[in-house]
Amino acid sequence: MYKTPAYAAITAKAPLTPHSIERREPAAHEVLIDILFCGVCHSDVHQAREEWGKGIFPMVPGHEIVGKVAKVGSAVKKWKVGDTVGVGCFVDSCRECAPCKAGEEQYCDKGMTGTYNSVERDSKQPTYGGYSTRITVDEKYVLRVPESIPLERAAPLLCAGITTYSPLRHFGVKAGDKVAVVGLGGLGHMAVKLAKAMGAHVTVLSHSDSKHDDALRLGADAFAATHDKSNFKKFAGSFDFILNTISAQHDYNAYLGLLKLDGTMVLVGMPDPIPLAAGSLIMRRRRIAGSLIGGIRETQEMLDFCAEHGVASDVEVIAIDQINEAYERMIKGDVRYRFVIDCASLGK
Amino acid sequence: MYKTPAYAAITAKAPLTPHSIERREPAAHEVLIDILFCGVCHSDVHQAREEWGKGIFPMVPGHEIVGKVAKVGSAVKKWKVGDTVGVGCFVDSCRECAPCKAGEEQYCDKGMTGTYNSVERDSKQPTYGGYSTRITVDEKYVLRVPESIPLERAAPLLCAGITTYSPLRHFGVKAGDKVAVVGLGGLGHMAVKLAKAMGAHVTVLSHSDSKHDDALRLGADAFAATHDKSNFKKFAGSFDFILNTISAQHDYNAYLGLLKLDGTMVLVGMPDPIPLAAGSLIMRRRRIAGSLIGGIRETQEMLDFCAEHGVASDVEVIAIDQINEAYERMIKGDVRYRFVIDCASLGK
Repeated sequence: MYKTPAYAAITAKAPLTPHSIERREPAAHEVLIDILFCGVCHSDVHQAREEWGKGIFPMVPGHEIVGKVAKVGSAVKKWKVGDTVGVGCFVDSCRECAPCKAGEEQYCDKGMTGTYNSVERDSKQPTYGGYSTRITVDEKYVLRVPESIPLERAAPLLCAGITTYSPLRHFGVKAGDKVAVVGLGGLGHMAVKLAKAMGAHVTVLSHSDSKHDDALRLGADAFAATHDKSNFKKFAGSFDFILNTISAQHDYNAYLGLLKLDGTMVLVGMPDPIPLAAGSLIMRRRRIAGSLIGGIRETQEMLDFCAEHGVASDVEVIAIDQINEAYERMIKGDVRYRFVIDCASLGK
Repeated sequence: MYKTPAYAAITAKAPLTPHSIERREPAAHEVLIDILFCGVCHSDVHQAREEWGKGIFPMVPGHEIVGKVAKVGSAVKKWKVGDTVGVGCFVDSCRECAPCKAGEEQYCDKGMTGTYNSVERDSKQPTYGGYSTRITVDEKYVLRVPESIPLERAAPLLCAGITTYSPLRHFGVKAGDKVAVVGLGGLGHMAVKLAKAMGAHVTVLSHSDSKHDDALRLGADAFAATHDKSNFKKFAGSFDFILNTISAQHDYNAYLGLLKLDGTMVLVGMPDPIPLAAGSLIMRRRRIAGSLIGGIRETQEMLDFCAEHGVASDVEVIAIDQINEAYERMIKGDVRYRFVIDCASLGK
């Protein structure tokens, strides 16, 4: 066992404080990873504050992990000590159901094992996330992080990157498509970069005029402020695909009206239920769909795609003792575009 | 001009009463059709009662028309006098936009010309529907009705048939797929027959136990009453595709929970807006879509498919003077499964 410094919410809604956890010796098919950076995802706050249902406490959040392999189990062939690797939102799944067999472990029929706020399938021990300095993970759930991506900018790819890459790919976005990205936060800024790298024409729709310059800097071809209702007329029937990253209440029907015939809007944010008018879909055979992160195979594909296209997250690196302030700033949207913890600040 | 007996709502919400209209002499590319039967669609009531926005009165409803060609314009090559033909929900469209060029005239960028409650594109004269004995229509918007389908049972195919056939085809339902049909009315009963003819395994979900025997008689493999909430557990994650024909308020999220990973629910009914939970879509990458009737090419394909597979609507033939009573019975769901007007009852 490895005594490992971490930051945890000791109880629901408590601020994060220093905490000590134990990481297990890697079994035959496991690797021990020294964590270097961990991204801060909005879902970390939701879970630490029990906004998505009952949590397991103490909770060590963090599922955007990059680091180096420190030790490998006796049967591990894929990884060697020193490899640069990542761990995303899950560390295990049943491996037997149709989704698992199809490489869509995030949709495991029996439920994926979350990187934190979950329990290991065999031992039923709680899982702890990346706000720590080490993690032991089955080799199949580890990703190779290409050396060309700066590590701190690679960390958010493990959740924000794959969450936006997967629907763009799954729903067939291709070069020349007109894509709208709704909301320019952690997810949205990755969506812009990835859709551009796929050759799409990208328009950012944001409530905040203050995002205009950033949107263009990130690669968007156009920007429209959603507080200006005339934009919903101007862009009516314009887009092949909308990636909707908003977690706050908004009008799905207004955004659906921006889709062309047979266009699709994919939700990756989780607002409270929103009234859907059947006519918004029927009149142009539009679709609204949801998408949840991505499988291991596709996450690796995304990392390789990012390396090939020079895509990485825009980050603000923080020390772990800034985490509670970072949560408050993230809630206010005051981050461009992802906080990443330098895990060296946790000590040894 | 042809003086033509009809039944019309003279003003919004008025009962239908005898009325006389004029049908034009067919122009070079038009045909004059003697109407034999016309189906009664729920949307006839919605429009005659102005439940879907302002209507054009007097209004002669009816867009499930079958009859015989009585006269052809000088340039018509496709049709000859005596041909058995049909007219569906629209009689014209712009013919120039991308949807029109793709044969998806129902999604015409400039709006299709409805068979009734609309105006002709050139003359701006109101269009009148099939509760009458004649209609003059551009030859391109006329369908060939296969001789093997009894005419009164063919009429509802022009709306109820294509409205259900199109989404089954467009969203790729194939042999062996698990399909649920929600609601067993005019649309639902066609959906069951068509999905079965496509080789799907069909389950009917209906609030009414009284539909159990009919569902099986129509060809369904299974039936589940939706007032029994345990069925939503029993069938969770069971279906590849759901065709949702309900026009009343219901819980989309409950039905979405019945879809497998990557399953699609298509709406063809138009209830008032219903709260949609993003999680209902995200957790299994489900989709909810809408579909509006079908284009001319696809409607012809559907008619030929019905002839090939022995599919026709279950109907109750009425005389025109029963139409107001039929509306009341239809609103109560007291029809199995489509009223069809014998237009001979209108006189000459």
